[in-house]
Amino acid sequence: MSYTIRAGKIEDMPSVYSLVQELANYENEPDAVKISVELLQEQGFKNPPAFWTYVAEFEGKIVGMALFYRRFSTWDGPSIHLEDLIVTEKFRGKGIGKSLYDKVLVNAMEQGVERVEWAVLDWNTPAINFYKSTGATMLSDWNVCQMKSKEIKTYLGGDL
Amino acid sequence: MSYTIRAGKIEDMPSVYSLVQELANYENEPDAVKISVELLQEQGFKNPPAFWTYVAEFEGKIVGMALFYRRFSTWDGPSIHLEDLIVTEKFRGKGIGKSLYDKVLVNAMEQGVERVEWAVLDWNTPAINFYKSTGATMLSDWNVCQMKSKEIKTYLGGDL
Repeated sequence: MSYTIRAGKIEDMPSVYSLVQELANYENEPDAVKISVELLQEQGFKNPPAFWTYVAEFEGKIVGMALFYRRFSTWDGPSIHLEDLIVTEKFRGKGIGKSLYDKVLVNAMEQGVERVEWAVLDWNTPAINFYKSTGATMLSDWNVCQMKSKEIKTYLGGDL
Repeated sequence: MSYTIRAGKIEDMPSVYSLVQELANYENEPDAVKISVELLQEQGFKNPPAFWTYVAEFEGKIVGMALFYRRFSTWDGPSIHLEDLIVTEKFRGKGIGKSLYDKVLVNAMEQGVERVEWAVLDWNTPAINFYKSTGATMLSDWNVCQMKSKEIKTYLGGDL
């Protein structure tokens, strides 16, 4: 199967949005996607962009994407965070995810960062096995904490 | 006790570095800190900066700091990541950590983001209890994955 991996363009953002929604459905969180195509187009193409994407194109259609951005580690310095790596269901098992993953890692090395980081759901065994097979480390002793703006405003109360 | 919370300046970076090292020791990873004072000064004060800091100052000395930066969530849009929240050992239990935490959350609301995220070690019960008491959610089903440049280069091999 012949597909192309290339940098995402502003006109690819509707497809990127659809893939994000598809992943949310797969993760049993169909209502979690609060962003819009317009936000992706604004944030991903301002200067400097809030993120970059690679897309996988097959016969003119976007069938997968990786979305990533820079972070800063106080241990390792500038790093890359891989926020999403998604291949649409019908096109899984064809190596497209690996091609996108490899492309992000190559980009990270070209940017000269010391670390690439991402998160994976602990029940997503196929993904975990793939990441481990590439040499990635699972830091299972770290927990992710989040606070949404609603909870932050409640907590801060009069301090805001 | 009277301390001041203020934005970190370039001349505070040696103190910020010392606090990072102190936290690494506390987390049983004394050799993990690969960055330098110079890297903090460069990355934190370029345009745009790779991170921001707030510092807690007591009698002219930096006794705590919070380091944070922007991320992009494909569910919630622009977000803030709190990379480090550190108070030097002798000054713990005096509310300085809470003051720094609150300041970051206020800043996040001023920036208009929908989410603040950070990571905590699963054995750091005092920290977890504090975060929970403020309304934060622990996402214990997410695992953090990392790959360092050495492993990435091994994996990519000839592709680099």
